[in-house]
Amino acid sequence: MTQPLPPIRIGDTLPACEIRITQDMIDVYAAISGDFNPIHVDAQVAAASAFGGTIAHGCIPMEPVFQSIMRWRNSEALPPDTAIRLRYRAPSRPGDVIRSEASVRGDRQLEGRRLIEIGFVCLNQRDECVIDGECELTP
Amino acid sequence: MTQPLPPIRIGDTLPACEIRITQDMIDVYAAISGDFNPIHVDAQVAAASAFGGTIAHGCIPMEPVFQSIMRWRNSEALPPDTAIRLRYRAPSRPGDVIRSEASVRGDRQLEGRRLIEIGFVCLNQRDECVIDGECELTP
Repeated sequence: MTQPLPPIRIGDTLPACEIRITQDMIDVYAAISGDFNPIHVDAQVAAASAFGGTIAHGCIPMEPVFQSIMRWRNSEALPPDTAIRLRYRAPSRPGDVIRSEASVRGDRQLEGRRLIEIGFVCLNQRDECVIDGECELTP
Repeated sequence: MTQPLPPIRIGDTLPACEIRITQDMIDVYAAISGDFNPIHVDAQVAAASAFGGTIAHGCIPMEPVFQSIMRWRNSEALPPDTAIRLRYRAPSRPGDVIRSEASVRGDRQLEGRRLIEIGFVCLNQRDECVIDGECELTP
């Protein structure tokens, strides 16, 4: 917060962030959330499912986006009234490295508030899109 | 998956789900996500901030919504291409009990796909809205 941030311009790229997903991480998230669904935590049941193995809870692959925004703004938390729209495109699995790519797409005023639109994708190590979406916030 | 699910109708209420937030949960989420920002994990620094105390990472208070949808559909994961739009209205803190209230708001066809729109709010124990939003999915 001590350095002034550069002005925001359409096309600006946000810092890339990534997360490496492990089964331990998924198991711990199950304990936090209470969501112990076998598709997340039971390798044998998950292997027999349509997914063919365990998958991460939906929040986990979004984490690089949150971190990218906060690092970009040198901020501790998302600004109040931040809106996020996201679509789940593919599951994330243990061993996947999920990275975010995000950039400034829009800059408008609404009722005296500046609204910056950020487009983002979360990609795995095979460059497959696992989540895409937009985020609108007042910097 | 063995019981047929009842038909979906506009106005249907989804199962209520709740999560009790603790500092332990936040600390564990920091370890999962790599986001050890003091606003989440350092009581002293957070107390001196505008928030007046530690706050949960943004994913944590969304968890009741995910669980509500999955319980409603008796499903292990969100359907592919599920879209979520959410707005953060207020921070969630250790000691808060966050519950979701969700209902079916829309039912339409798009390119041969049935799209169900769900509106949701996440409320704390003082009935303050911490997140609101919509989710669109193909059941």
